[in-house]
Amino acid sequence: MRRKLIIVSNRGPVTFARDEAGERVARRSSGGLATALRSLLHHHDVTWIASATSDEERSLAGAAVELEADEGSPYRLHLIAHNEQAYDWFYNVVANPMLWFVHHSLWELAYTPKVDSAFHKAWQEGYTAVNAGFAAAVLAELEREPGAAVFFHDYHLYLAPRFVREERPEATLMHFVHVPWRQPDYWRVLTRSMRCAIDDGLIAKDVIGFHTDRWRRNFIYSTRELLGEDVTQRTVTAPISVEPAEFEEVAESEAVLAAEREIVARRPEKLVVRVDRTDPSKNIVRGFRAFELYLDGHPEMRRRVGMLALLDPSRQEIPEYAEYLGAIEREARRVNDRFQENGWMPIELQVGDDFPRAVAAYKQFDVLLVNAIFDGMNLVAKEASLVNTQDGVVVLSENAGAHAELGDWALTVNPFDVDGQAEAIHEALTLDAGERRRRLDAIRAHVREHDVNAWLDLQLAALDRVATTAQR
Amino acid sequence: MRRKLIIVSNRGPVTFARDEAGERVARRSSGGLATALRSLLHHHDVTWIASATSDEERSLAGAAVELEADEGSPYRLHLIAHNEQAYDWFYNVVANPMLWFVHHSLWELAYTPKVDSAFHKAWQEGYTAVNAGFAAAVLAELEREPGAAVFFHDYHLYLAPRFVREERPEATLMHFVHVPWRQPDYWRVLTRSMRCAIDDGLIAKDVIGFHTDRWRRNFIYSTRELLGEDVTQRTVTAPISVEPAEFEEVAESEAVLAAEREIVARRPEKLVVRVDRTDPSKNIVRGFRAFELYLDGHPEMRRRVGMLALLDPSRQEIPEYAEYLGAIEREARRVNDRFQENGWMPIELQVGDDFPRAVAAYKQFDVLLVNAIFDGMNLVAKEASLVNTQDGVVVLSENAGAHAELGDWALTVNPFDVDGQAEAIHEALTLDAGERRRRLDAIRAHVREHDVNAWLDLQLAALDRVATTAQR
Repeated sequence: MRRKLIIVSNRGPVTFARDEAGERVARRSSGGLATALRSLLHHHDVTWIASATSDEERSLAGAAVELEADEGSPYRLHLIAHNEQAYDWFYNVVANPMLWFVHHSLWELAYTPKVDSAFHKAWQEGYTAVNAGFAAAVLAELEREPGAAVFFHDYHLYLAPRFVREERPEATLMHFVHVPWRQPDYWRVLTRSMRCAIDDGLIAKDVIGFHTDRWRRNFIYSTRELLGEDVTQRTVTAPISVEPAEFEEVAESEAVLAAEREIVARRPEKLVVRVDRTDPSKNIVRGFRAFELYLDGHPEMRRRVGMLALLDPSRQEIPEYAEYLGAIEREARRVNDRFQENGWMPIELQVGDDFPRAVAAYKQFDVLLVNAIFDGMNLVAKEASLVNTQDGVVVLSENAGAHAELGDWALTVNPFDVDGQAEAIHEALTLDAGERRRRLDAIRAHVREHDVNAWLDLQLAALDRVATTAQR
Repeated sequence: MRRKLIIVSNRGPVTFARDEAGERVARRSSGGLATALRSLLHHHDVTWIASATSDEERSLAGAAVELEADEGSPYRLHLIAHNEQAYDWFYNVVANPMLWFVHHSLWELAYTPKVDSAFHKAWQEGYTAVNAGFAAAVLAELEREPGAAVFFHDYHLYLAPRFVREERPEATLMHFVHVPWRQPDYWRVLTRSMRCAIDDGLIAKDVIGFHTDRWRRNFIYSTRELLGEDVTQRTVTAPISVEPAEFEEVAESEAVLAAEREIVARRPEKLVVRVDRTDPSKNIVRGFRAFELYLDGHPEMRRRVGMLALLDPSRQEIPEYAEYLGAIEREARRVNDRFQENGWMPIELQVGDDFPRAVAAYKQFDVLLVNAIFDGMNLVAKEASLVNTQDGVVVLSENAGAHAELGDWALTVNPFDVDGQAEAIHEALTLDAGERRRRLDAIRAHVREHDVNAWLDLQLAALDRVATTAQR
């Protein structure tokens, strides 16, 4: 069934810039969310509402423009040119670090955050104002297409739906939360009016989606405690995934093959890989410490094993993120200075955004380390398993959403237990080939069955249930 | 009904030392727990099991000694001389900071804690070993008095009850948790085996008590998620309290009156008081920042208002606590250096253990600031209200257990919202006298009705229900 959908997310499916010749060029947005949602464009009538994030995009903003997705499917893109000061407060103060840090329990509560008048102002004139801008764009699109279902995404847009609901009580609204929902005590980092506004915005929806039952349960429990409402019937668990065929194709592209040749030429006998944004939730510093403990306990493996850490620098305008990158670099250097010899370096740290190299590393890992403190899903565990050629083993945090699906076939670690992570690296490197193959095949079979379309189908089915109930 | 009780807590009701003449001297332990439990000695047959914490106490350890409480009531004290290395790991590594920081959500999860082999060892050879020592003492006492009910206290003793239960399936065991219980996600700071051992130790009890419904709900929810057990029927909410008559008597003692004269001679027109241990959970740094914001917004009150902070230095052998004291001193100095003039100092910081002075400050406050990040109860809010002579106003954190009882008559603050705390100080200082009196009287009436005996009665009633059920 072809549907009319309005997708609302902070980042759009493509970004626009001018090249040196002054021509407008479109580039597909990276990131699992944009990638996953793009496949909706091929089967449905989609209007996508997003923030304009460059001068070129601001010149396109205001009304929707007609575009074509890669394979020729038409869709409409409605970019919003927010006030720049408001957007800075929205993005760099409220959404990150505040909401992100709440979702991932990252504050050091004895000292941070201090909710002061600067934050109150950023909340009101930044987050609330930008959300009002999104709501206005949604209302304009609903004016044009009153029957369209509106599909909000993530922690940037918690307030917009309530503004829409007030004007359009009959609209069909969904929200997908891509981050781990916190239990109610941690929400008390925000003032009562802020945390209730967030919760109230979310429950203005007909369907609210989460990647795992665990995050969904936390939401139900929070809403009961903060607002006294039981929203169980309106929630759905739908684990995000990837497009296996597309991903396997990328793995055979010339760019990936070139990067892979380079890795193969330099790789040690055993390769431990991690691929992450440099986000404090990703637990990179403890991962290096765990690798040091592994080398401490297994001197026979020195010079034979190395860790390749491909890290995409993230949100460097935000002090907590800049500091975390410093801590990552310091810890890698400390471990390397302690062990390196004759050209062998225990940790090869590469900071940059290089997707082909990441996919090449996925193909080459013997151990993939995903030790996130908390993670809504973690698509790296799914992507890397699909294309790996080494019967590699996934070491997976119990606090990553992916653990709910892949935990039986991965080696589970507690993200704070660096000793346990060192042991898991050892166990992964000593599993016999048959066992490794069996686990990897099971992960692949799961991901192929539960692909990105399965994720979308679960949500659209939830939408249909709402529509049916409404008709009754 | 006179009962046979075995009380088990890390600290005993009195501490022993030798004076300069070589005589043994007993001193009543400070702290709300020891004070509250002491009143059991007058009405029941009590054996109290506690750790020996000085050389003098170690010389008394091994078997129970017969003692008399202040008013002549006899009781038995069974001190345990733990291995000193084991006790250091138990107390200074596992109980504090680890469990305390988990209970109060104080870790900066991106960086701390690192659960490494040192911690695994402290858990096994410290916390587990000391708990086994407590269990052995309890078993020895149950051998002597098989019908006695055993009453464990707090986060130091989570493992002992399971050891007792294994040997004595029929024993009546209670536990009172004096700290805020965390929701299950935060318990994942500990490895699965550790967090399950804690939970399993607690549910070995017949009755498990908490100060508020909120902490109790968190426990029920954690146990359901961690162990799959529903323990609702075995939990009880019983808010700890004070002995009003005794406290009012102390307030008229010569030591308190002398301290009060000193405060009166020096106090500014309006006095904001805080009395706390220098514990990161107490939120002292943000309290100073809030007072600075108040002075910023109300220049007319400079030189007329002062904050008196009486802080008992706490757990200074633990790095996180030593650092927090440094942060407290730095913040007080920063605010004072900014505003002080002509002998007026905005914040008077007194670090030391001086109970008479604290009670004198209770009598003199116009505003009592209790802005804890999380707090199991916070008895300061109850004690200070009982004896205050200024129609003072209590500013109370929504995350203090006391808020569940006193919230209607206090000014509620969010502990992270420094701006909100500054506003609450202003509101407290501008409430009219009738309103202030009405609120303070209501708090007093509540505390007089819900005194320490009410707390004990709730627990003993829960014990009786267990006994009745067992008879059936």
